Amino acid sequence: MLNRFGTLFTFTSWGESHGPAIGCVVDGCPSLIALSEADIQPYLDKRRPAQSKYTTQRKEPDEVQILSGVFEGQTTGHPISLIIHNQDQKSKDYGEIKDKFRPGHADYTYMQKYGIRDYRGGGRSSARETAMRVAAGAIARKILNYSPLNLPPEGGEATALAGAQGGIQIRAALVQLGKHHVNRENWDWAEVNNNPFFCPDAKAAELWADYLDDIRKSGSSVGAVIEVVAEGVPVGLGEPVYGKLDSKLAEAMMSINAVKGVEIGEGFAAAALRGEDNADAMRMQGGEVHFRGNKAGGIAGGISTGQPVVVRFAVKPTSSILTQVDTVDKVGENTSIRTKGRHDPCVGIRAVPVGEAMMACVLADAMLMQRARKIS
Amino acid sequence: MLNRFGTLFTFTSWGESHGPAIGCVVDGCPSLIALSEADIQPYLDKRRPAQSKYTTQRKEPDEVQILSGVFEGQTTGHPISLIIHNQDQKSKDYGEIKDKFRPGHADYTYMQKYGIRDYRGGGRSSARETAMRVAAGAIARKILNYSPLNLPPEGGEATALAGAQGGIQIRAALVQLGKHHVNRENWDWAEVNNNPFFCPDAKAAELWADYLDDIRKSGSSVGAVIEVVAEGVPVGLGEPVYGKLDSKLAEAMMSINAVKGVEIGEGFAAAALRGEDNADAMRMQGGEVHFRGNKAGGIAGGISTGQPVVVRFAVKPTSSILTQVDTVDKVGENTSIRTKGRHDPCVGIRAVPVGEAMMACVLADAMLMQRARKIS
Amino acid sequence: MLNRFGTLFTFTSWGESHGPAIGCVVDGCPSLIALSEADIQPYLDKRRPAQSKYTTQRKEPDEVQILSGVFEGQTTGHPISLIIHNQDQKSKDYGEIKDKFRPGHADYTYMQKYGIRDYRGGGRSSARETAMRVAAGAIARKILNYSPLNLPPEGGEATALAGAQGGIQIRAALVQLGKHHVNRENWDWAEVNNNPFFCPDAKAAELWADYLDDIRKSGSSVGAVIEVVAEGVPVGLGEPVYGKLDSKLAEAMMSINAVKGVEIGEGFAAAALRGEDNADAMRMQGGEVHFRGNKAGGIAGGISTGQPVVVRFAVKPTSSILTQVDTVDKVGENTSIRTKGRHDPCVGIRAVPVGEAMMACVLADAMLMQRARKIS
Amino acid sequence: MLNRFGTLFTFTSWGESHGPAIGCVVDGCPSLIALSEADIQPYLDKRRPAQSKYTTQRKEPDEVQILSGVFEGQTTGHPISLIIHNQDQKSKDYGEIKDKFRPGHADYTYMQKYGIRDYRGGGRSSARETAMRVAAGAIARKILNYSPLNLPPEGGEATALAGAQGGIQIRAALVQLGKHHVNRENWDWAEVNNNPFFCPDAKAAELWADYLDDIRKSGSSVGAVIEVVAEGVPVGLGEPVYGKLDSKLAEAMMSINAVKGVEIGEGFAAAALRGEDNADAMRMQGGEVHFRGNKAGGIAGGISTGQPVVVRFAVKPTSSILTQVDTVDKVGENTSIRTKGRHDPCVGIRAVPVGEAMMACVLADAMLMQRARKIS
Repeated sequence: MLNRFGTLFTFTSWGESHGPAIGCVVDGCPSLIALSEADIQPYLDKRRPAQSKYTTQRKEPDEVQILSGVFEGQTTGHPISLIIHNQDQKSKDYGEIKDKFRPGHADYTYMQKYGIRDYRGGGRSSARETAMRVAAGAIARKILNYSPLNLPPEGGEATALAGAQGGIQIRAALVQLGKHHVNRENWDWAEVNNNPFFCPDAKAAELWADYLDDIRKSGSSVGAVIEVVAEGVPVGLGEPVYGKLDSKLAEAMMSINAVKGVEIGEGFAAAALRGEDNADAMRMQGGEVHFRGNKAGGIAGGISTGQPVVVRFAVKPTSSILTQVDTVDKVGENTSIRTKGRHDPCVGIRAVPVGEAMMACVLADAMLMQRARKIS
Repeated sequence: MLNRFGTLFTFTSWGESHGPAIGCVVDGCPSLIALSEADIQPYLDKRRPAQSKYTTQRKEPDEVQILSGVFEGQTTGHPISLIIHNQDQKSKDYGEIKDKFRPGHADYTYMQKYGIRDYRGGGRSSARETAMRVAAGAIARKILNYSPLNLPPEGGEATALAGAQGGIQIRAALVQLGKHHVNRENWDWAEVNNNPFFCPDAKAAELWADYLDDIRKSGSSVGAVIEVVAEGVPVGLGEPVYGKLDSKLAEAMMSINAVKGVEIGEGFAAAALRGEDNADAMRMQGGEVHFRGNKAGGIAGGISTGQPVVVRFAVKPTSSILTQVDTVDKVGENTSIRTKGRHDPCVGIRAVPVGEAMMACVLADAMLMQRARKIS
Repeated sequence: MLNRFGTLFTFTSWGESHGPAIGCVVDGCPSLIALSEADIQPYLDKRRPAQSKYTTQRKEPDEVQILSGVFEGQTTGHPISLIIHNQDQKSKDYGEIKDKFRPGHADYTYMQKYGIRDYRGGGRSSARETAMRVAAGAIARKILNYSPLNLPPEGGEATALAGAQGGIQIRAALVQLGKHHVNRENWDWAEVNNNPFFCPDAKAAELWADYLDDIRKSGSSVGAVIEVVAEGVPVGLGEPVYGKLDSKLAEAMMSINAVKGVEIGEGFAAAALRGEDNADAMRMQGGEVHFRGNKAGGIAGGISTGQPVVVRFAVKPTSSILTQVDTVDKVGENTSIRTKGRHDPCVGIRAVPVGEAMMACVLADAMLMQRARKIS
Repeated sequence: MLNRFGTLFTFTSWGESHGPAIGCVVDGCPSLIALSEADIQPYLDKRRPAQSKYTTQRKEPDEVQILSGVFEGQTTGHPISLIIHNQDQKSKDYGEIKDKFRPGHADYTYMQKYGIRDYRGGGRSSARETAMRVAAGAIARKILNYSPLNLPPEGGEATALAGAQGGIQIRAALVQLGKHHVNRENWDWAEVNNNPFFCPDAKAAELWADYLDDIRKSGSSVGAVIEVVAEGVPVGLGEPVYGKLDSKLAEAMMSINAVKGVEIGEGFAAAALRGEDNADAMRMQGGEVHFRGNKAGGIAGGISTGQPVVVRFAVKPTSSILTQVDTVDKVGENTSIRTKGRHDPCVGIRAVPVGEAMMACVLADAMLMQRARKIS
């Protein structure tokens, strides 16, 4: 709760957009896992702003530093403190929003809840906090691919299965940008890193480039839907009744800034289906249970089935836009606001690595929980 | 986690579908709240099966009994133990599913996770557990309407504001049954209790009656979408970053049996909007802040805005259907199953009071949290 | 917190001294553990009142019933609900204490904290609650003796190691009754069940019989010190820094009614020692690490060393005595009170099985935690 | 749990003795509290090493820096990140202990639990961690003296009651050094800061100076007992049954490095008393309840009575001594060790401000909990 996420694998994040630094403390990571900044930085780089014209032009190298919990290259089982020093804090940009409440932001609610707010860049409510989710998620991935629950074939080594060749692989993609959906027949995971949208459909990505460029130039913004898929998840993760894997994923994804909806597998579309069309029939195949479909998104009764875990979440359009919007100020006067400055025309893009990270954290937590429960 | 919900206002549920009883322990309820079984029973009655041909014909009076925590008609601040004795446990019905895994149910995942399962009526995975959510929710409602944060006009009484006349009012309705949506122009809360679907659109309800009758007779099932609205919620509830009100609501709703999606306010539709169309402009009105729209669903930055809190969740079609579906059995043989017995053609209907209850529990918990934080 | 104990192995207790029943919900117990009422009842019998003239004459059979979480004789991994119906609720005894605050009891503090109190037998503050600790502790013992951390010799069975022949053995004894200590040279665990004091020193027990008889007849009471010893605890249990095994034991023991002090190993006496006298030197012996002493009480740095874990706790004299004591009543008038009725001349005696139970619960919780952390 | 302390007012500490820094994240502090480094530093200075010849000569300025959660001099309600950069990390000192397990330290248990240990200065097990407790405690004190539960007389200001003039005052003193106790008749709180032992008895302090000098010169060490007293605590703090104020204090104090025993009020001495001698009689005085004694240490039924809360804890002698002690090394060979380097001849001295800090944290947490519960 509050600024901590997780039960056994936990992280507590801290820091404001325009404070000296942001950071988090990862607590509950098992020992003997090889870890250095090099394991974390690539994921932060993926989320880093200003990599294309479609994300905010704030320049932040986002270089992470490990301050504790690692000794001679391995985790010690003690808290891992991570820190990123803020660089590009253009506080001068924030003169106008000092006294006005930006609609769609946390300005008004923070002021009402706390009686005080750090207005510089949104303070604590800034999506800058998600950098620490990504950092924690990188550590979670190490746990997921180092688990006795995922034993390699006989003779193999239990250590450090590469994400791509074994263990649990977590990937995400943008499947909707504003009104435009990807064509699932064109889905190619390899394309995701070939365009600035994390789009798995090369053709759609081309179309999106023009579409978002128009929106960006007009000072507007648009929403998006992200799909996160975890493959290689063993059967048995998740705790009924109030620790269901889908429940924890919903909590995790909805806690990301600007997210307004979460669905698992068939999701909202399942409401329109009949029972026989929604059933994932089962068959033995090579001595193992196989499913004929994955309408369930890899979760039944709150517990992973062994199929890919599939989650989608919707991100609203960036609230900071150039259009003038009516609002009020802190002394209770009517006014209006248009947000200049450096913003993402679609915050959904940079939410892709964040969604992956939250999936990793939820799964790592569930895996530690399951270990604890397993008698034999 | 596990079988406990909440942080300060908590309940821990227990019991299996065909065990001797189900129950829960509500821990964290403030003292001096008038409480008796009569405060809880009406909500349980609303959820009770066999009230129409559209829900399971299992006969369960679901009479709740308070075993502790109430003295001379008032809560004492100590745990409130609630129990409902099971009556209609037709265990003979469950011969076939003893050895086969029903697709869409928790049969296979429970077996894999625990190495054992109580197959009688789904055991712990039965939606019967939701009765205890409804019971706990009834107590949460008492807290919500007895809060110093919702003071009555001067000279008024701080106690027991009736839901309808003041305080926080929580209501839910079925807004989609299978492929059929309500027409929001026909929305009338008063209609919700006039039809067996909790449908706020009288015309739609008529149509649904025939539609669901056909599905029921054919032994099939269908999904649904439920909308839960809480009015009178004060500004300031919810804790950033990992205790956001929307995050907690998503967790809560997704933990209800058969739920596959959750959205707040505009939800998934927000992804297709542009920033200026999604903005809830603000204006002073009579000395108070008013919003021109509620695309946000009453939550900004994870904190309630003072507007109605609006949540929708999607329920998949009942997995128990008469159609033969391929599956496997516990010794790893291929087989198939058709579920006879007494089932709901649309479990979404009985999820309506459950959704209300979870909203009440989340809000009560958030309200106690906010009290703790408020210095002045 | 509140009425729940533990992190992974948890129980939530409920019920008042003179309500219809008391109970608890054990949540987090692994599946596949053989369990029936017969595993729990013997421990409750040990704690049961009225077994000698030295404990309260209240007649309570304390028959426990399992309401959930066990199927065909084995735990299912789901919550285990336990209930004991109250039998001998002589409410008429409580006329006088209805309005007066008994010094040393929770009467005054409960009234101030909650604004209401169930005065019948102390309500929730009654030591009757400890019956549920004993019941939960019986389940914890099953976990402790069914752990992969305690593997049997090759070819043996991993299941249900008897407490006495292997696994973790937890025993407690009264080592001080009022001013009288046991002579540790006479210590014989077998004697503990041969006298009504759980005294390991047969000679001391004889002396104590006369001593406590005098106190009982004079309507007075006396305190006691209990020592709890857990043998067979593997090295590595306990979590630094705020989940240290000694810290959790201190919390657990201090939460027992009437306890005023807790110490580990040498305890308070260690303050008077010099470093060289307090050191537990180590030596290899048969390929294993052995300690020359156990001043540390089996815990170093908050983590079990593999030696016996030794805890002592002090119980104050029963506050309910026949001597008139000055007090105030609930309308703020001076008055006095002498407590008639059925009370223990030394509540420390019945605290012996309670101390054992809390040790078992702390260790079971720590063992599940350690499983979760262990990568290899 | 793990490295986090508290429920509503929490802090998570991190860092090793010889890493780049140590720190903590305080989460749950209410907003609008005036806070700067100057509020924290004086308490750190009190704990700082090398202030006399009786504590370790390691030179650490222990300058704390606030990295988040404070804006324009006030807390914002968001996490407060505190950091202290390590200065004097003489890693060369630690050659010998790299491979040997120091008896009485966490060396052996950490190695067994985690399979790895940062041997430099004890790594995470170093008492250096307690600096962060002291820092968090300084913030807790601000909460305690800013509480609506402690309203000033009418017309007064609710803000920032100075510790000495009102609100809750927390003080601690060394009451036993090795075999030597203070004479309580000489108790003078003003003396505590006049000697290097935090001793309230000026005469005893003189004696102790010679006594501890001898011990120090001989390379030995000795234990101590610390008494912590909180005055001005309102009635009603603490949560039965598993969140009792005494239970939480026992957990908190026992979690401090080297602590082996905790007692409340009369503590272990209560075991030898008769009921009538242990009763704290009550009397109305000036319209308020007064107690004739405080054998209970300010807590009844786990809840504060309004009297001073009195806790004592025993610290074992420093394990690092010059005397050769038998031990084993990490490859399982017999060896022996004598610890050179800079150590405290009595770690109990520097535990005095740590005990105060833990008292403050427990009380602040309990106060926030009580606010949440209070309906009216």
